[in-house]
Amino acid sequence: MNCNTPTDVTFSFTGFAQRGGRTDHHADGWGIAFFEGGPEPGSDKGLRHFVDHQPAADSPVAELIRRYPIRSRNVIAHIRKATQGAVALQNCHPFVRELWGRYWVFAHNGDLKDFHPRLHGSFRPVGSTDSERAFCWLLQEMAKSHADMPSVAELTLTLRELLPRIAAHGTFNALLGNGQALWAHASTDLHYVVRQHPFAHATLRDDDVSVDFAQHTQPSDRVAVVVTTPLTTNEAWVRLAPGELRVFVDGDSLLNS
Amino acid sequence: MNCNTPTDVTFSFTGFAQRGGRTDHHADGWGIAFFEGGPEPGSDKGLRHFVDHQPAADSPVAELIRRYPIRSRNVIAHIRKATQGAVALQNCHPFVRELWGRYWVFAHNGDLKDFHPRLHGSFRPVGSTDSERAFCWLLQEMAKSHADMPSVAELTLTLRELLPRIAAHGTFNALLGNGQALWAHASTDLHYVVRQHPFAHATLRDDDVSVDFAQHTQPSDRVAVVVTTPLTTNEAWVRLAPGELRVFVDGDSLLNS
Repeated sequence: MNCNTPTDVTFSFTGFAQRGGRTDHHADGWGIAFFEGGPEPGSDKGLRHFVDHQPAADSPVAELIRRYPIRSRNVIAHIRKATQGAVALQNCHPFVRELWGRYWVFAHNGDLKDFHPRLHGSFRPVGSTDSERAFCWLLQEMAKSHADMPSVAELTLTLRELLPRIAAHGTFNALLGNGQALWAHASTDLHYVVRQHPFAHATLRDDDVSVDFAQHTQPSDRVAVVVTTPLTTNEAWVRLAPGELRVFVDGDSLLNS
Repeated sequence: MNCNTPTDVTFSFTGFAQRGGRTDHHADGWGIAFFEGGPEPGSDKGLRHFVDHQPAADSPVAELIRRYPIRSRNVIAHIRKATQGAVALQNCHPFVRELWGRYWVFAHNGDLKDFHPRLHGSFRPVGSTDSERAFCWLLQEMAKSHADMPSVAELTLTLRELLPRIAAHGTFNALLGNGQALWAHASTDLHYVVRQHPFAHATLRDDDVSVDFAQHTQPSDRVAVVVTTPLTTNEAWVRLAPGELRVFVDGDSLLNS
């Protein structure tokens, strides 16, 4: 989720968490990261990071997040179906690292074959997933390309060169966030919706819950939600094309991104 | 806390959290990190990390930790009284970074004057505290001293050289952990106790709670707790000398450490 105003994820997370063992088979752990802190959009440098190797549908930590509305402009969540790497805390997404004095958060849906890049830089995997290897390699190459934090547009150009090199190894639906922007790379399945004025009703696909966003929003609010499979049955989800990279800032997809 | 068997911190955390706004003035946020994952002591590479800029005494996340027993062999917790850096999520301890394919956790009690080391390496502060600067410098110098993960004994020798260079700038009671060991450096206030067979009753100083550890332990269990001010009124807390560095492994203080 990427928004222009701090927003809670309780509605979306309620449906999403059901896929961790109840309505879907992604039951090998889960995680969520919330950027927080700054008064202005893009200034959120603080991070809350929750991971659990229990299924999201049963986890007490997930229950806390469903009940306690943490408000954030940038959230990345993941529920895991283990393909590579055991069911263990260090293999739960999203992964977090610091680069250029900012936290970076990464989650991956898919499977990479024979992806063993040379990691000679400052980022090494703690766990044993293909996903964390991809994240470490990505940060290593980003650090080589820019001495300091580049603009969102500049970094997007760099990512446009780097991400296909990972995607060549298999299925690579991936989200990368730093509190300023959310980068979404599609390989097979990634959809997004932008919720903005006039807000409407939405009904969750995975749980018997509806919400009237008009009752919980200001007309200036804007929220982009990016997910592998659409969360609601009655919103205009847009499917990303294979190989597409989209950047979300302040709740909207950047033009020509 | 450093133990030889996964142990929950609900008892110690109940008293500790009271100091976050109730029995003490450390009300500018708090945090806790739990290593988890491996079957053997020293193999815990997974990490749960909770931070909150609300006072620990009132925080819903702290409430979760008091009620939901997370079992871990290595835990570092901190409640903050802001001396440098605003009350913000990115300034809450403990801080986390990855080095040599392991997560490192750091918490600091004290205040460093004129500590602005040259950070030319791969670790840069996200927030604005003297503490995170100290942690980044420490990791940078550790990375220079060892190409790969050294033994606990080798790293202790390195830390014995590096930590006094930070401590020269002010008060530096600090804890560093990596899931294998807990390093404790005292400047003014740091106490530890080793709980082992025969286990006894303990009564919290900050809350009207007692526990009979004998009812909750096996004879082989061993738990070291290190804290600025003793948590209980009836245990044999040992005070660290100014400038002393102590290493805890499997719930005990290493000899000649």
